[in-house]
Amino acid sequence: MGIKDKKIENFLEELSSKSPTPGGGAVAALSGAMAVSLVEMVINITKDGELRAKNLNKVRKLRTELLKLADEDVSAFDEVMAAYRSKSKTRIKKALGYATEVPEKTKALSGEVEKLADEVVEHGNKNAVSDARTAVLLSKAAQASAEENIKINKQALKKL
Amino acid sequence: MGIKDKKIENFLEELSSKSPTPGGGAVAALSGAMAVSLVEMVINITKDGELRAKNLNKVRKLRTELLKLADEDVSAFDEVMAAYRSKSKTRIKKALGYATEVPEKTKALSGEVEKLADEVVEHGNKNAVSDARTAVLLSKAAQASAEENIKINKQALKKL
Repeated sequence: MGIKDKKIENFLEELSSKSPTPGGGAVAALSGAMAVSLVEMVINITKDGELRAKNLNKVRKLRTELLKLADEDVSAFDEVMAAYRSKSKTRIKKALGYATEVPEKTKALSGEVEKLADEVVEHGNKNAVSDARTAVLLSKAAQASAEENIKINKQALKKL
Repeated sequence: MGIKDKKIENFLEELSSKSPTPGGGAVAALSGAMAVSLVEMVINITKDGELRAKNLNKVRKLRTELLKLADEDVSAFDEVMAAYRSKSKTRIKKALGYATEVPEKTKALSGEVEKLADEVVEHGNKNAVSDARTAVLLSKAAQASAEENIKINKQALKKL
């Protein structure tokens, strides 16, 4: 079952369990997905046809992609664990490489979300400015969290 | 249906819709809940009985409370909208007061999460330090987002 199909309570239960996945990488992607959903809401209540026309497809695509990255992060890290168990250096290297690429994508997409969030803080309906600012804060946290995941996997690669 | 019982995809769909709830306040509480779930995961994989004994009940309680606050934020803001429609100044005042108290609680609890996250960064299993750091980042974003919601409701109160 993909993360998007999980009930929030069940996802949090899995997150808190001792199983290493889902972990911080999936949370980073989900934070980006929540941020872009808030951006979409602000666009939806803003009477500015241009803001809407320019960005609506983009925000929806970002939400779908970030949700997919949450799942990819889980698969990538499961493969890292399997690779370490197999003790094959080639396999570990490949797995860590992929486990670095996934949060790199999360970071890049959450950076796009931040730009859109900045735009709706500026041009969106002022009644929802707290939602727009929440989107900015969360997209920043998503990028910084993704960076933590990139860093730890790069360090593990170096140690090989 | 409470937020905890929603599928992640459906929650994000509701978040992005033009309906004002769920909004940034619920997202703040959920971010705090994700952060404390990551803290619990790190505790669960750390061989430090003291860390575990001291904090496990606390993190579980925080998760439950933050999930409840996400729902309370939705009810509080629904009541704000209903109060404005009723045009009763007394009702609007009361509704905005409650809609300020909810994110104040979210901010306080997410502050507790941040302290626990700092502790697991320091004393938790080093293999999960990226998860611990993600928890720090997300609990900070939760507090700052809650503050945005406190601010906007206080400003609305002043305008009455």
